[in-house]
Amino acid sequence: MRKPVKVGLVGLGGWTRSIVEAVEKSKKLELASCFSRTEEKRERFAQEHECRSVRSYEEMVKDKDIEGVLLITPNYTHAEQTVLAAGHSKNVFVDKPIANTIENGKKVIRACRENKVILSVGHNSRRMAEVREMKSLVARGALGKVLSAEANYSHSGGLSLTSQQWRWDENKCPALPLMQLGIHHIDNLVYLLGSVRRVFSFMGRIYFSAPNKDTTMTLMEFSGGTIGYLGSNYISPQVYYLNLHGTKANLFFNLREGLYIQKSGATRREKIEVREVDTVLEELEEFADCIRENKKPEVGGEKGLESLAIVEAAIRSSKSGKPVDIEEIT
Amino acid sequence: MRKPVKVGLVGLGGWTRSIVEAVEKSKKLELASCFSRTEEKRERFAQEHECRSVRSYEEMVKDKDIEGVLLITPNYTHAEQTVLAAGHSKNVFVDKPIANTIENGKKVIRACRENKVILSVGHNSRRMAEVREMKSLVARGALGKVLSAEANYSHSGGLSLTSQQWRWDENKCPALPLMQLGIHHIDNLVYLLGSVRRVFSFMGRIYFSAPNKDTTMTLMEFSGGTIGYLGSNYISPQVYYLNLHGTKANLFFNLREGLYIQKSGATRREKIEVREVDTVLEELEEFADCIRENKKPEVGGEKGLESLAIVEAAIRSSKSGKPVDIEEIT
Repeated sequence: MRKPVKVGLVGLGGWTRSIVEAVEKSKKLELASCFSRTEEKRERFAQEHECRSVRSYEEMVKDKDIEGVLLITPNYTHAEQTVLAAGHSKNVFVDKPIANTIENGKKVIRACRENKVILSVGHNSRRMAEVREMKSLVARGALGKVLSAEANYSHSGGLSLTSQQWRWDENKCPALPLMQLGIHHIDNLVYLLGSVRRVFSFMGRIYFSAPNKDTTMTLMEFSGGTIGYLGSNYISPQVYYLNLHGTKANLFFNLREGLYIQKSGATRREKIEVREVDTVLEELEEFADCIRENKKPEVGGEKGLESLAIVEAAIRSSKSGKPVDIEEIT
Repeated sequence: MRKPVKVGLVGLGGWTRSIVEAVEKSKKLELASCFSRTEEKRERFAQEHECRSVRSYEEMVKDKDIEGVLLITPNYTHAEQTVLAAGHSKNVFVDKPIANTIENGKKVIRACRENKVILSVGHNSRRMAEVREMKSLVARGALGKVLSAEANYSHSGGLSLTSQQWRWDENKCPALPLMQLGIHHIDNLVYLLGSVRRVFSFMGRIYFSAPNKDTTMTLMEFSGGTIGYLGSNYISPQVYYLNLHGTKANLFFNLREGLYIQKSGATRREKIEVREVDTVLEELEEFADCIRENKKPEVGGEKGLESLAIVEAAIRSSKSGKPVDIEEIT
């Protein structure tokens, strides 16, 4: 067994727990240090997880012992943090989205390329066994031609949002539900159906007291002709589904019930059994493998930027009231 | 028991079977005559259903014995047929959509108003027990504020479409799946959420050999702030669902499984049991009641025109690539 990759963890928010559980489960990674701005928080975390607490992010990236950083931090900090890490030859795993703006996304990609470090973007949804199976079914022609795709990822996170949190602010997290939740399905859809040509979006602040959007609906035209819908809100009870409609069959996937196929002529749906995957463990172990074997991660900078560009197109469309060509964005 | 309303049936296509079954089940209506252009078809139908076969539509509407006509005919014939019937003081039940164009829809309304006859438009979907229950739950505040609505009605009717059929032709049936199927959900959505302010639509001919659209996706902004999505295609295996996402709960309805509620904080959904309704019987008996009691049907000309205007807005939007205000249409 080769030596585990020593990583530093940045950002100790809600999603970090899933990341840490995976790192501690894996023999390919070792949690060596942690940083968050709140001293008390990071000291407690360091004790609990037996890693070093560092007083600054600079200290972490200058540490010769550290091989990679895991950035589970606010979107608007991703670029600066990645550029600094890459400049110190640290490999970077950054949670989705790659950055808060296209310009910053490009900076992230450039810094990692120039410094020859691995860049992996945490779009873990596509690693779900159900999404892999959907991809395989589409590729094998089980659906015939795919006419349309529908997806929704929403939850009630926004009900407890406070003005102290960065997601409160539209400038720090534009198109909040689409940027934080819906973007998972954007990666899924591009994975399943290929690139997007044109985007239109309605975004509303229907219920929020926060000065940010709480509800978004986005239409996408894919280069292959398929049209897609993506709903995302930050208020309602959790919804996560992804459906494809084809000439020969429909696929229905939702988190509660799993994956079903409805074949031509049938109104009944058949369950498709899959073996569950720990998607976070898989993406982090892939990150470690890429570092050790100098391979490219499945979702690197370009794929991360492609998803961000679709969100950006949706934002521009909702402002202009017109569809936006992806070509205009990147 | 008062005397049943004597009706003439026009159009002997696929949907007519459901209409006739309801008429024959009801004590409020009596099928007195039938007409379709194909002589053999109408003679056979008249024998089977023990009614008079008439040689022309004019003959039917001039028949003193007939009190109302049931128009189960192509969209583009609704206006002319209604105007003729109303001119002979016949009450009119016309299947959805009210007409093929806004102009013709207005003609239909005017003719019935001027001749003081009942006009009922066959949007039967809202009469489903599940949709009634959704309306009641929304009205009672069980969902809190409704943020978004999602609906899809699609089936594979288009796979067997031939150039002999009027639906083949985009001029005779523009936005085919939306005009024929999706319009049911438009009526449902307006019933549940109120009027629509703005519409955007992508429409594609993704698979059809017919020179008509096979797939549509439409976004709607409701006057109350809610945003809605409606998918409709004429190719894939049948899909019929209607979901609402609210601040306090989500509702999920599909034809296969019925109605479910997911309350705040829950990932599980609870089934809501309802008593099934024969929606076609109900709308036809309401038509008879309105004739006998001089009442207004639930879905009269105005409601029928409102749904048609949303389809028309979607068509214009898909052509111009811009959202269309409903105000521009009517």
